[in-house]
Amino acid sequence: MKKIKQTLKKIQPLKNEILIKAQEKLDNLTKPKGSLGKLEELAKRVVGITGNLEPSLEKKVIFVFAADHGVAKEGVSAYPQEVTYQMVYNFLKGGAGINVLSRHTGAKVIVVDVGVAKDINPHPNLRIKKIGYGTANMARGPAMSKEEAIQSIRAGIEVFEDEFNQNGVDIVGLGDMGIANTTSSSAILAIFSKEKIENITGRGTGLNNKEWVRKVKVIKKALQVNLPHSEDPFDVLAKVGGYEIGAIAGCILSSVSFKVPVVIDGFISTAGALIATKLSPYVKDYLFASHLSAEKGHKVALNYLKLHPLLNLNLRLGEGTGAALAINIIEAGVRILTQMATFEEVGVSRKDNH
Amino acid sequence: MKKIKQTLKKIQPLKNEILIKAQEKLDNLTKPKGSLGKLEELAKRVVGITGNLEPSLEKKVIFVFAADHGVAKEGVSAYPQEVTYQMVYNFLKGGAGINVLSRHTGAKVIVVDVGVAKDINPHPNLRIKKIGYGTANMARGPAMSKEEAIQSIRAGIEVFEDEFNQNGVDIVGLGDMGIANTTSSSAILAIFSKEKIENITGRGTGLNNKEWVRKVKVIKKALQVNLPHSEDPFDVLAKVGGYEIGAIAGCILSSVSFKVPVVIDGFISTAGALIATKLSPYVKDYLFASHLSAEKGHKVALNYLKLHPLLNLNLRLGEGTGAALAINIIEAGVRILTQMATFEEVGVSRKDNH
Repeated sequence: MKKIKQTLKKIQPLKNEILIKAQEKLDNLTKPKGSLGKLEELAKRVVGITGNLEPSLEKKVIFVFAADHGVAKEGVSAYPQEVTYQMVYNFLKGGAGINVLSRHTGAKVIVVDVGVAKDINPHPNLRIKKIGYGTANMARGPAMSKEEAIQSIRAGIEVFEDEFNQNGVDIVGLGDMGIANTTSSSAILAIFSKEKIENITGRGTGLNNKEWVRKVKVIKKALQVNLPHSEDPFDVLAKVGGYEIGAIAGCILSSVSFKVPVVIDGFISTAGALIATKLSPYVKDYLFASHLSAEKGHKVALNYLKLHPLLNLNLRLGEGTGAALAINIIEAGVRILTQMATFEEVGVSRKDNH
Repeated sequence: MKKIKQTLKKIQPLKNEILIKAQEKLDNLTKPKGSLGKLEELAKRVVGITGNLEPSLEKKVIFVFAADHGVAKEGVSAYPQEVTYQMVYNFLKGGAGINVLSRHTGAKVIVVDVGVAKDINPHPNLRIKKIGYGTANMARGPAMSKEEAIQSIRAGIEVFEDEFNQNGVDIVGLGDMGIANTTSSSAILAIFSKEKIENITGRGTGLNNKEWVRKVKVIKKALQVNLPHSEDPFDVLAKVGGYEIGAIAGCILSSVSFKVPVVIDGFISTAGALIATKLSPYVKDYLFASHLSAEKGHKVALNYLKLHPLLNLNLRLGEGTGAALAINIIEAGVRILTQMATFEEVGVSRKDNH
């Protein structure tokens, strides 16, 4: 708990003074004021977060946190549990969606095993922070102990710190892998948002109607059996969360504590963001919502966090794929700020009589 | 006119047979079916256009067509006319928004002078295809002769052909520069869409209310004075168009005739697309709408063409900036198709009982 408390203590609200300078800089660039819309806003926010008027997003890292979920036994996913394990190997071999999009964006992929049901062989891009071999079945009791919930958050903090200290990190994207983790994410969102389960439960990897009805029932049962305290994020995480969701929350807290912009992906990483923002209210200003997932519930989660997604591409893969794409756009905004010529530099006339 | 007719003759409808193969390929990749949403659709469309199941978008070119507009004399822009000329130099020096975003996306920028009011010094990235020193004032008569309209379309065809034959082009983005060219674009859209001028006239580079009212009046006057025939795209282009809009239309036709995907940018390049689609109905299937511009009228133009924008970032700069960003996303989709591992290759289990 000490590590988490230390991290939370380092988190500060954004300083807005530098934003005035960023705005002046943007308004001197050879374009009508504000004509690059969201790109300008993105650049300003990166300036506000980093405190740097000439930020660079060269060192991009996507952390993919992987873990298994006991609730998979209830038949809430269209894919068998071993897919978590198999996909981790796919990530390490470079063949998954997140690998392709990270190469495209120029981001490094770091895979973190926080609780896959099998052991994974060591690999340079793998960090082993195993808390257990999958959580317990939340439909029959808590998914994990409170101590494990704390450990999962700490695992996320530690992998970020290690990477930051050893190689440097300019921007972070958050991905997930874990069969049945939309079930856990819907449960977490239900507790915080008080929305009806039916309205925030999606089809995950592709459930049919009957399977979806079962998934809704399982989530309701998990909430009845565990009665999580909505004011205690550790309790919520322990009772209906997942190791990877806790680690995502921890990774967010650590990035924010080092003033590194954080790009969340789809429904699962947004569930991690829900936990993180409950632990520190300042976190929200450091988050970029990459996209609006096709997974039902994501819109509710983003609205709850008052975040506006950059992209709407009907994605529902997870892994950090949407984050990888969004990082590309955020970097475009930063480059506008740092690389465009000013009116004075190139002798372009300013607006008439204004 | 011969060149245009030859180009139109080469344009063919998309062949849909290959799309079945592209879909099979996508469904064998290690992800739930359809879970990469629009990225998958983009990849399929590139396959359909190029006829290649393993397309590459390595050679990206943004053409920025620049020209002046006589109607600028009516005070329809917030910036003075010399900005067209000054910005062309900015493009050639690499300091403008389109340069920054093209570098980010890995695209080459080719600037084409089809009618800037001053002569531009030669430069390796400049193509000189000058039709005149700005159009005439469309509020007092036709912007150009029918012969000039044909020349402007031919100029667009020729610059594309030259680049394609000399260096190869895998995807094209279309940009524009021309003070007062939103006025011309609104007039073109009004003729084809029959929408009220007020509903499709925006604030361009930043008009205030009074200036906007004047702009609306000028467009109404141009339509009354010239009475363009909505069924004759050459007549529309000649009476209320611009040299760069004609060249954009020509560049689209030429790209399509060589089966090269075309990414349109904002309001002006969409006006060019309106002209091009009137000349060949097949053109539409080769077009990607990059973004929804903040310029009023763009939404109406895209709806008229039944195109759905990929991005919504509140951009209104033109130059091809939105196209540069969108090319990045389209390439991401193509890389998903060509680089992701299949279930068989990496031994990932398929969906349970489906």
